[in-house]
Amino acid sequence: MATLNIPRSRKDAEALDLDDPVQDARKAFALPEGVIYLDGHSLGPATHAALKRVQEAAGKEWANGLIRSWNDARWIDLPATVGSRLAGLLGAQPDEIIVCDSVSVNLFKLAAAAMKLAGTRTIIVEESEFPTDQYVAEGLAGISGATLKRVGEDKGIDALRRESAVLIKSVVNYRTARIADIAAHEDAAKAGGGVVVWDLSHAAGAIDLDLTASGAWMAAGCTYKFLNGGPGAPAYVFVRGDLAVKLESPISGWMGHARPFAFDAGYTPRLGVARFASGTPGILSLAALDGALAAFDGVDMRMAAAKAQRLGDMVVARAQTLGLEVISPVDAAQRGGHVSVRHAEGYAVVQALIARGVIADFRAPDAMRFGVSPLFVRYVDVWDAMDALGDVLASGVWDTTEFKKRAAVT
Amino acid sequence: MATLNIPRSRKDAEALDLDDPVQDARKAFALPEGVIYLDGHSLGPATHAALKRVQEAAGKEWANGLIRSWNDARWIDLPATVGSRLAGLLGAQPDEIIVCDSVSVNLFKLAAAAMKLAGTRTIIVEESEFPTDQYVAEGLAGISGATLKRVGEDKGIDALRRESAVLIKSVVNYRTARIADIAAHEDAAKAGGGVVVWDLSHAAGAIDLDLTASGAWMAAGCTYKFLNGGPGAPAYVFVRGDLAVKLESPISGWMGHARPFAFDAGYTPRLGVARFASGTPGILSLAALDGALAAFDGVDMRMAAAKAQRLGDMVVARAQTLGLEVISPVDAAQRGGHVSVRHAEGYAVVQALIARGVIADFRAPDAMRFGVSPLFVRYVDVWDAMDALGDVLASGVWDTTEFKKRAAVT
Repeated sequence: MATLNIPRSRKDAEALDLDDPVQDARKAFALPEGVIYLDGHSLGPATHAALKRVQEAAGKEWANGLIRSWNDARWIDLPATVGSRLAGLLGAQPDEIIVCDSVSVNLFKLAAAAMKLAGTRTIIVEESEFPTDQYVAEGLAGISGATLKRVGEDKGIDALRRESAVLIKSVVNYRTARIADIAAHEDAAKAGGGVVVWDLSHAAGAIDLDLTASGAWMAAGCTYKFLNGGPGAPAYVFVRGDLAVKLESPISGWMGHARPFAFDAGYTPRLGVARFASGTPGILSLAALDGALAAFDGVDMRMAAAKAQRLGDMVVARAQTLGLEVISPVDAAQRGGHVSVRHAEGYAVVQALIARGVIADFRAPDAMRFGVSPLFVRYVDVWDAMDALGDVLASGVWDTTEFKKRAAVT
Repeated sequence: MATLNIPRSRKDAEALDLDDPVQDARKAFALPEGVIYLDGHSLGPATHAALKRVQEAAGKEWANGLIRSWNDARWIDLPATVGSRLAGLLGAQPDEIIVCDSVSVNLFKLAAAAMKLAGTRTIIVEESEFPTDQYVAEGLAGISGATLKRVGEDKGIDALRRESAVLIKSVVNYRTARIADIAAHEDAAKAGGGVVVWDLSHAAGAIDLDLTASGAWMAAGCTYKFLNGGPGAPAYVFVRGDLAVKLESPISGWMGHARPFAFDAGYTPRLGVARFASGTPGILSLAALDGALAAFDGVDMRMAAAKAQRLGDMVVARAQTLGLEVISPVDAAQRGGHVSVRHAEGYAVVQALIARGVIADFRAPDAMRFGVSPLFVRYVDVWDAMDALGDVLASGVWDTTEFKKRAAVT
């Protein structure tokens, strides 16, 4: 293991915070007192702007503007305008992204469109993929008569080279945080005549993405993790500009129609990525997301991503010192915005941490995940959180009934 | 035309308001001053409870509770608990409804599941059907290889008798407000071995629905019209209790999985209608809907529907007096919660009305729609609105450039 450039003391950590080029971003967040929040990879915290924006959308635009706000408050344009705000964070063009539906629904639409584009009837998904991606692939295979092939972790790229297929793949794996090589996968897809549908959920807002430079064709992602859009905030679809016109969304709802209010009998899709919109957009959730993205204004994502790597290095080093196995790549360049650490009783350990005000999470069967959202997590936060982890493990406090109860959502 | 039991003077209208058994419901609404709102069939107005609930969900549950609110604030249960609140309004059992996605996405899922259940490859949609229903049918036919048959207005029932097919049909037509006979269609579907997928969007909250007594099998609907859930509020899926277990949603996202947090590799659907959930629910929009439905607490839907009929009768009678053709059924028993009136320059007329504070809407090519949401529209409101309509038409003010401009959303 390479020597990690990490603080050796809390004082070192404080010094790093003072030097942090994105330190101002933290002011945007409405974080509660007494909490160290290392769960931004699951649900990002509220920002003041998001709270204000949703209140404005509800209390003014809806309550006073009523139906007129579809025009006057430009609700009708929000899926595209919020999409264009996301573009800078993903390395895409402003007109290549539309905000709509959930990741599950968007993966379904994109994978169906990709199969038609490539002329293939094969969908590939890796066994280590996030569950909903696997389930969606299964459902799509069922309705379309396609064949679903499950391959091992990181074996999708080989499968793409062997045959024309559609691979659904996360850029950052939810469990390991390992970053996939977008460009290499796109090359493999071209070689085999297939398409990759990327899931950016655990990547966007945590790593320095450049979809254009990486040659990505299509992607979907959620906005409630590192993008802080709010619980269940709407997802998005990215399609490379020149490709959109060749694609058909199987869920051809009226919001993807070229003239939704002309009430034509037949379906004519919009020219660009907006053809992947379907039903009426949820304005209150979209407004919260719109406000949330302001936290990224003026933030250099390369610097933010570099900070996340360094914060992650601190977790890695301390976990190893505590004798824990790190599931995530030790090399920060291969790791997203969270670090997974193995513990057979990880659920109980995480509950004991939460009781101390350090919020991390757990994924079955044995992964404790520590998220290091670079916009609001400080070096001292990670220092203190790792101190707490050491205390919890040393005290054995996790090994009590109180912390071993299982909850519905972990 | 039957003599309509309507007020003959504004004083009569005032008297009816004093006698109105659902008059208290209006207090729940946060209506702006100086507006008569006859557009609840397009976007219902905000209630105080909805505004409070969304602020609570954002400012407390999200900002302070963070990830813990999935359990502590029962976010994870909201799609089912809000669904159970809807049940009473639809004449369904509390566990037969799940709130999720949009109407477009839900119609797609239900129609796909219905085709599989009936073993048919034919989808029927009427030419007069709401556009997104037609477009969704077209897209579903495309991906599933089914045949799409378009039939004339109200000819779906005959088509159902002739062959095993899935008919997508609105209970209340968006343009005419004509109410379809659910039981008769269900009988036809049984005779032909097919299934009806009902769209309740323009019906729920305006007419006295009894899905169970009518023998309905499955339905979807929006919540932002007569249910006042907020702009783009989430939609819902209804499936008759004993049928759910036989159905497969083609969009098998993790929220429809029996154990979403077990992270199983294979898909096991939930037992009931919850299998039609897909991605992570949008909590802020769901919270607004949760609050909005409180306006229906203690309201007898038979009385509310009877009031809507009488308010509609007022629009019908006055429009006829003004020499306008009424598109909607004159018989209130066959009419939903809005009245459509034909005018070749209806767009401009509606704009002139809006400028006077009377908000109605327009649907291409020539339908002016006046919504009579029974929970907040008063008899005097309709009286005054029809006065304003008479004035606008008599003055010819609509026939100016100011009102003839076309906007993106009408």
